[in-house]
Formats: sequence, structure tokens, C-alpha cells
Amino acid sequence: MNIDSLSQILSTIKFDSQGLIPAIAQDNDKNDVVMMAWMNEESIRETFKSGRVCYWSRSRKSLWKKGETSGQHQELVDFLIDCDGDTILLRVKQHGVACHTGRRSCFYRSVQNDGTIKETMKVEKDPSELYNS
Amino acid sequence: MNIDSLSQILSTIKFDSQGLIPAIAQDNDKNDVVMMAWMNEESIRETFKSGRVCYWSRSRKSLWKKGETSGQHQELVDFLIDCDGDTILLRVKQHGVACHTGRRSCFYRSVQNDGTIKETMKVEKDPSELYNS
Repeated sequence: MNIDSLSQILSTIKFDSQGLIPAIAQDNDKNDVVMMAWMNEESIRETFKSGRVCYWSRSRKSLWKKGETSGQHQELVDFLIDCDGDTILLRVKQHGVACHTGRRSCFYRSVQNDGTIKETMKVEKDPSELYNS
Repeated sequence: MNIDSLSQILSTIKFDSQGLIPAIAQDNDKNDVVMMAWMNEESIRETFKSGRVCYWSRSRKSLWKKGETSGQHQELVDFLIDCDGDTILLRVKQHGVACHTGRRSCFYRSVQNDGTIKETMKVEKDPSELYNS
């Protein structure tokens, strides 16, 4: 994508007062929602440039190239903007697991009718192997 | 769900400085992500009480019982909390369309490789019929 086209895309996006926008990642094959994180202009530029999803880490205040440390990266398949322009939906090919706990998705805690929380997904990768390598 | 159980659930949720948390709605049958909006404590209580999804409208600064005006409500099927406790995934039975434009999902604008934006969904309901009744 050329610079003019990207600037036009960015102009349709409504960033919040921090310059951020929530981005939902959904696996393109299985359709499960695997995570939600934040993007800024720079991370969107990097995502289109590399074809791999890059978020903005609010805690580290830096670009977060998903999977750069863990290897569990996300290939961008489709980039969707909602009706109001204030949320992004990323359709991705998830390589390995999305969650830092080693689970496929970050949404593994389900609230039951009796108010207890049930864990619905198993740990697929040992987190110490994801981040200590 | 009794009051104690609900209070325990609410204590595991990390609301932001405005007392809000992003909530993604995903259709339980078709698995498409239909919208993202915000919840606060009160809207979560209302959602569990009624079994229908209730958000917090940031623009109107009031509870937003989804579908109350338009009839396009969302039945709660599953309420999932992410690993960090700062995002909610609602699995819902979407009655009618989720988007105020009359489309099934708010995520109908897809960024193409050439930088253009393609609308990927048709308008299923006339928006004037949704809100003028």
C-alpha cells in the first residue's frame, strides 16, 4: 500500500484522546476471538508494511510486534473498520497461541450462572518456554 | 445470579479510569463479531439481571439497553473475561441486525490492498424503520 492510500485509511480512523484505537483479533480459520489490544498510527503503518500485526503496548509505551519474542505471531488477513471508525477488527492467521498464559485465546474465563468462573481452555504452550527463550 | 456472586465477578474486572471496560459482541451461532461497545458496573448488573446485553453509552452518558428502541436486541449466551480482566467477550444471540446502519455487523468496511475501502455487507434493514418507530 502506498503512503497516500495509507494516509487516507488513517484519516477515516477515529483515534481516542491518547491517539489509540481498540483492535480485536479474530482467527480467520476458526473464527474465535483471540485477543483485544490497542493500536496507534505507527502500529497500523507497521502492520500494513510487514503484513504482521503490530499493536501499541500501553504499559511499555512502545510498538508491540506481536510474536516477536514468543514466535506466536499474527498474519494479517483482513483489516476492518467499524461504522463509527473507532474500533478495528483484525482477521488474522494466528501462529501458535495468542495468550501469554499459553492458551489459544485470552478469553478463556467464562462466568457461570452460579457466579463462578470456569476456565474453558487448556494451556497449549508452557509460558516459560514462550518468553524465556 | 445472587448479589454476592455478582460482586465477586465485578471484583475480577479491571475497569479503566472512567469506570468502563470494552465489550466485544460475537454472534454465538455464526461466530461473526458484530460490534464493540463499553460497559460499566451498572450495565453488567443489568445484563445479568435481564439476560439481555446492556452497554453504557459514552455519548449519552446513560445505560444503553441494546435493542430497546430498535428491537434488535442481544440475548446473552456466554460472558467471558480475558486474561488481564480488562476486556469482555459477549457471546450473544443477535436478534436482527447489530449495526445502526442496518447491517448485520458494524465491521463492514474492509481495507483493500490498494488502500481503498470496500463495503462487504449489505443493508438488511432500513435504518429509518429501526429508529423512527
